[in-house]
Amino acid sequence: MEVTRQNFKDSLKTVYSAIEEADFLAIDGEFSGISDGPNVSALTNGLDTPEERYTKLKKHSMDFLLFQFGICTFTYDQAKSKYIIKPFNFYVFPKPFNRTSPDLKFICQSSSIDFLASQGFDFNKVFCHGIPYLNKEEEAQLREQTEERRNQQANGINNQSFTSPSSKGPAHVPQEHKDYINRVIAKVEGLFTSSEKTLDLEPCTGFQRKLIYQTLNWKFPKGLHVETVETEKKERFIQVCKVDDEERKRREQQKLEREQEEVNDAVGFSRVIHAISKSGKLVVGHNMLLDVMHTIQQFYLPLPEDLPDFKEVTMCVFPRLLDTKLMASTQPFKVNDLMNNINYHSIICIKTGKHLAKSETNRTPPAK
Amino acid sequence: MEVTRQNFKDSLKTVYSAIEEADFLAIDGEFSGISDGPNVSALTNGLDTPEERYTKLKKHSMDFLLFQFGICTFTYDQAKSKYIIKPFNFYVFPKPFNRTSPDLKFICQSSSIDFLASQGFDFNKVFCHGIPYLNKEEEAQLREQTEERRNQQANGINNQSFTSPSSKGPAHVPQEHKDYINRVIAKVEGLFTSSEKTLDLEPCTGFQRKLIYQTLNWKFPKGLHVETVETEKKERFIQVCKVDDEERKRREQQKLEREQEEVNDAVGFSRVIHAISKSGKLVVGHNMLLDVMHTIQQFYLPLPEDLPDFKEVTMCVFPRLLDTKLMASTQPFKVNDLMNNINYHSIICIKTGKHLAKSETNRTPPAK
Repeated sequence: MEVTRQNFKDSLKTVYSAIEEADFLAIDGEFSGISDGPNVSALTNGLDTPEERYTKLKKHSMDFLLFQFGICTFTYDQAKSKYIIKPFNFYVFPKPFNRTSPDLKFICQSSSIDFLASQGFDFNKVFCHGIPYLNKEEEAQLREQTEERRNQQANGINNQSFTSPSSKGPAHVPQEHKDYINRVIAKVEGLFTSSEKTLDLEPCTGFQRKLIYQTLNWKFPKGLHVETVETEKKERFIQVCKVDDEERKRREQQKLEREQEEVNDAVGFSRVIHAISKSGKLVVGHNMLLDVMHTIQQFYLPLPEDLPDFKEVTMCVFPRLLDTKLMASTQPFKVNDLMNNINYHSIICIKTGKHLAKSETNRTPPAK
Repeated sequence: MEVTRQNFKDSLKTVYSAIEEADFLAIDGEFSGISDGPNVSALTNGLDTPEERYTKLKKHSMDFLLFQFGICTFTYDQAKSKYIIKPFNFYVFPKPFNRTSPDLKFICQSSSIDFLASQGFDFNKVFCHGIPYLNKEEEAQLREQTEERRNQQANGINNQSFTSPSSKGPAHVPQEHKDYINRVIAKVEGLFTSSEKTLDLEPCTGFQRKLIYQTLNWKFPKGLHVETVETEKKERFIQVCKVDDEERKRREQQKLEREQEEVNDAVGFSRVIHAISKSGKLVVGHNMLLDVMHTIQQFYLPLPEDLPDFKEVTMCVFPRLLDTKLMASTQPFKVNDLMNNINYHSIICIKTGKHLAKSETNRTPPAK
């Protein structure tokens, strides 16, 4: 199943169920590049210590973007003695969610892009329809901002936690805005005596909107619902509606839900990773160090400086990881070269779906 | 006209003619981002000296990719008293042309990508079908490499410039390759006594191919055509054909032409820029400093450190440049603010085509 921003919300239940019912999962990522330093084939080698490998990848691979994330869930059907597999292919992109959100830069490596193109990769699914995501800190910041804005705009609703101190008295309106605010008040007073239910003010600045919210809250504590609306041209204006108490509460509730949904939309694909993490289930990958590093950096937090800290973070996020590449080169699978090869193939058979199979050639070279 | 790698060669004549017959041209680029440092809106400002602006853009804007290049040619039709315009929209991408070619890294800025996506930009046209290009140094290197390889492989053809010294005597075959080369010789001797015309050797290393070329040139100076062929899997093997002298010359000539065409393909879109440059015609742009900087860097040479050197290089590449933005803010167009605005619009009317119009919003802020 291909998942982009267009069908993400509709697919989320299916994805959550698949994770919930799975016995284990396999993951695999595609990146915009591998190395911004040495050649891909020279970046790592079989003689690296784990510390060296982590340090090299952290230094040279982390400014690329993980932009396709494959997940395959495996559930054993006792009755039929076979696995039911559900593959999902998520396209992700750090689309800025508003004008103050981080404007991420990432590197592309032409050989990696060219390899993906040769495999029929659809770049529009990433760049035009990629699912957004936030790491934990960005998510916390956004939730805080949303809460703050809600407090500022608190519309006389009878809930102290929604009312900031500034809305309890008349707003301080700077001299140069007094005329403007007085004209707004006159218009709103006009609304009360007219047969119209709604008044659209002209687009104005964020500061003017703040003054309007504070003034109207204080001057008309009842009978109004005030809301910021964005035009198609991304201009923002204030809409004032005459409402009775019940209607106002209903609208406030709707607005609250809409805001929460907007935050959830911005957290986006990270919610899927959080669900996998929360499930605590076995996560299988092949040569998966880079996948895990990118996953933690994009959806949780910047990578720690040192390997021991990275291990600790990883164990918190994915308590059970299994790398089939490591497995294939370790007893009992590694008997001799021939057997190793055979077992290697039987092991990777559990990884299914085109994106899982093809990615191997786009990776750091095998560790011996 | 949209031009990608798929129709580039077929369009080239049309493009060259349009440039040749034009009275002047307009250009405009789309980039993968604008600033990897300060916010786009804070990167430059109206108080910058020319030196400051150049230094800032060179530092923060040049690791992005110019990936769409718009050209519009304008030819005045005296009889009809109107301009005939021909717009072309080229998608360019630094696709590596072989395994030893530069593997370029470039930055993408999510806000720029998101803006282009919102304007219906087709990223697959860039990343899957972008026309390759080389700067002057890369082109020279590639021509040199091709020449060298041709000399190494010189197939006994009666032209001293194609024969490297090493092909004049028996090749020195290292001990560990002697068995292998002897087996090849036996196979080729077999070819002479068989009814087959062609012998495909097994895929082998570049060094082995070199030994085979040298050995066969020396051992069979006549009657053979030897060529490296690449399989779909990018494996290279040597093909040996029995040929008479005439056939061999014909094949050598074909091979030479094919090689030259491959080099021209790799130079790709740079050929269009070279044609504009060579025409010496007036090139019009709007707020075009960044376009010119990217054009020179991608298709000519790395940008000079200082503004005076950049100006000198620019004057060599585009001897006649006209920036309509500068024009609109200079006498006689700038009479007062109102007039400026009016003239500004009449000036930019000469820039036609959607990609030309839309790009403005994706630029560094206006200089005052």
